[in-house]
Amino acid sequence: MVNGMKPLQVGLLGAGTVGGGVFTVLQRNQLEIERRAGRQIQISMVADINTERAQEIVQGRAQIVNDAYQIINNPEIDVVIELIGGYGIAKELVLAAIATGKHVVTANKALIAVHGNEIFAAAKKQGVIVAFEAAVAGGIPIIKALREGLTANRIEWIVGIINGTTNFILSEMRDKGSSFDEVLKEAQCLGYAEADPTFDIEGIDAAHKASIMSAIAFGVPVQFDKAHIEGITKLEPIDIQYAEQLGYRIKLLGITKRTSHGIELRVHPTLIPAKRLIASVEGAMNAVQVQGDAVGTTLYYGKGAGSEATASAVIADLVDIIRYDSVEQNKRVPYLAFQEDKVMNTVVMPIGEITTSYYLRLKVSDETGVLAKITKILADNIISIDALLQKEADAGESQTDLVILTHQTQEKFMIQAISDIELLPTVKGSVTKIRLEELS
Amino acid sequence: MVNGMKPLQVGLLGAGTVGGGVFTVLQRNQLEIERRAGRQIQISMVADINTERAQEIVQGRAQIVNDAYQIINNPEIDVVIELIGGYGIAKELVLAAIATGKHVVTANKALIAVHGNEIFAAAKKQGVIVAFEAAVAGGIPIIKALREGLTANRIEWIVGIINGTTNFILSEMRDKGSSFDEVLKEAQCLGYAEADPTFDIEGIDAAHKASIMSAIAFGVPVQFDKAHIEGITKLEPIDIQYAEQLGYRIKLLGITKRTSHGIELRVHPTLIPAKRLIASVEGAMNAVQVQGDAVGTTLYYGKGAGSEATASAVIADLVDIIRYDSVEQNKRVPYLAFQEDKVMNTVVMPIGEITTSYYLRLKVSDETGVLAKITKILADNIISIDALLQKEADAGESQTDLVILTHQTQEKFMIQAISDIELLPTVKGSVTKIRLEELS
Repeated sequence: MVNGMKPLQVGLLGAGTVGGGVFTVLQRNQLEIERRAGRQIQISMVADINTERAQEIVQGRAQIVNDAYQIINNPEIDVVIELIGGYGIAKELVLAAIATGKHVVTANKALIAVHGNEIFAAAKKQGVIVAFEAAVAGGIPIIKALREGLTANRIEWIVGIINGTTNFILSEMRDKGSSFDEVLKEAQCLGYAEADPTFDIEGIDAAHKASIMSAIAFGVPVQFDKAHIEGITKLEPIDIQYAEQLGYRIKLLGITKRTSHGIELRVHPTLIPAKRLIASVEGAMNAVQVQGDAVGTTLYYGKGAGSEATASAVIADLVDIIRYDSVEQNKRVPYLAFQEDKVMNTVVMPIGEITTSYYLRLKVSDETGVLAKITKILADNIISIDALLQKEADAGESQTDLVILTHQTQEKFMIQAISDIELLPTVKGSVTKIRLEELS
Repeated sequence: MVNGMKPLQVGLLGAGTVGGGVFTVLQRNQLEIERRAGRQIQISMVADINTERAQEIVQGRAQIVNDAYQIINNPEIDVVIELIGGYGIAKELVLAAIATGKHVVTANKALIAVHGNEIFAAAKKQGVIVAFEAAVAGGIPIIKALREGLTANRIEWIVGIINGTTNFILSEMRDKGSSFDEVLKEAQCLGYAEADPTFDIEGIDAAHKASIMSAIAFGVPVQFDKAHIEGITKLEPIDIQYAEQLGYRIKLLGITKRTSHGIELRVHPTLIPAKRLIASVEGAMNAVQVQGDAVGTTLYYGKGAGSEATASAVIADLVDIIRYDSVEQNKRVPYLAFQEDKVMNTVVMPIGEITTSYYLRLKVSDETGVLAKITKILADNIISIDALLQKEADAGESQTDLVILTHQTQEKFMIQAISDIELLPTVKGSVTKIRLEELS
């Protein structure tokens, strides 16, 4: 110990995979962490309703209780780590810990995305820190980069591969040409996807993280309820292949942009140029690309989940608390990067108002004049074509695939154009539409 | 202004490209920065011996003086930004600013790499901050990531593409098959290389940055004088091509590793697998890959130089100073990430002691038995072969290229083996040796 300072006393709520990682890393790297922080960190209490499971993880290194309030009401505890997850009991306990004047570290993206504004307001009132580096992109210090590293910049946009499960699935679909359902099963076997994968594959987890980054980047409240969210469940291998032929990859991106009309906040499968660095992020890895007006493009890459990678972020937050503990509140890094009285209520635009490029796939009759009709509809809706891919019809087939990449347009014009195109008798079934971002 | 706080008063030493960027970004993003920092930043004085040049950059926004001591001795100035560069006058002025109790922000990698230990000792004595985010990898917040974001980790190694000029040259040599000399001329025309490019092409600039990262990663002093440095001037396009055929790219890497025998600190052209993300970093861009024991691999990518990208890092340091100004010294982030009394004097190993893999290219007579003799010499030196590439001799040629990738060995064994191989009458000329890192 430096200066004979008492170790930081930490109480852990929720003894699961990440909690185990926090114990393991704190123990293995105790000296290394203390060499940096100048103070020891000690997890002295752990709360879990399943005390047997907790014992397996804690292995005698801390007192185990089944009632979280024994930690929250213990005046010896300086910091509470919340690793329960979800919006329910986690919210109640975090607010209770704040009320007793404890700092909070959480890895809970759902909680921050849905109740962040309320939690930060309560924390400000009590003068405590609520740190959440682990909530976005796991071990990648992206919250620190955005809140502190890029303070000179007007952030223009952020795109992120911020859900490892879906990136693993998309990488496998591309490598093997398999269907979404096949790869999902494989991912579940390998432990890359949960038994109920809804939050991941429907894009909700990515939207939680994108909402948090949006607030920190632009100085607006956390607005998860305004996010437009599409998952990858309807994505077909054929679209991944056509995208490839056109020089693109399909990734599930969390996207947030600042425009003159408001903020874009959306999660959906997206074509991106294969030559961009972020397009090469494969498997369960995460990456976040940030466009700042001064720094230009920066990118941050690493493990977005996992026991020790998440623990790395949780412990970094504990070290920051050691450093900022005694700082006057108004000199600390603001929760959402911007001073609370400077947060703006900039509107999140409805999806119809956003502007982007598109990939369209249509089944058309293999006859002359079809293309002219489709391009006329696009032109009538002021949509111009960037690239076209028309497959020759297979022998004996009367239909063929037509793939169109468009230049930028407002989504509402694209929706109108598609509905007009689908009325054409030479167009069979519905049009597949995937948004495209050049990221330049 | 928040709380009616007086703007942070900054004095700028050296009005050049980066200084201009600092002015431009501070002015353009004044509101955005203040929304984050809670306090205005004002550059009130600028010192440059060329006051005419300074006037062009300052444009009436600050007082210009030709004597830096007018800034250093001005009690109204809180922070001095040193953008002069080099080891000479910059060192004297930085130490003088520290002596008068001013915080210092510098982008000067040479200064920190060569005199960092002395400067930090002086700063500690005076209780002032010396910040240097801009000194490594320009706009990428890599110092922040290493000092604060990864505090939970035992860092195992760092490799970085940390010199944009040489990465631009290598990218062009690969794309166009041109020679080093040709591409250097092109780079000079385009402004990617300076008129005297020695510091860049000989690897010295990269070694400055690698030395700083090594200290921060491992808790050792800055040891630039112990770094092994090789540039790219002798690299031939043929080696880039053979590497490509074997699935590798050649990059000038700054490398620092922690081993059980000491620290490796070296800069040299390096083969890395083409499939690694960092291998796709092209042109003048920078990237740093960090291996931590908890977080695994993380990577940080962005512009390593340029007016506004560097200004982004300088201004982020100013905002940090606003935040840490009133913090007791022993709670601030330590200069080199580790508490000063916990810095270890771990030895930097001589290059002969390091362990790595190798790419070898030999000109051999096109006759039987040659390969057997070479592989015997390697085996005698306990070096095993990973891959072999033998070009068929061109018609009428009696010599052919032999390329060997080896498994890991100590450099001194490799040097011995090469000197034995070069004695073989069937081997013509000297053996080209390039180190190879798998980065996994």
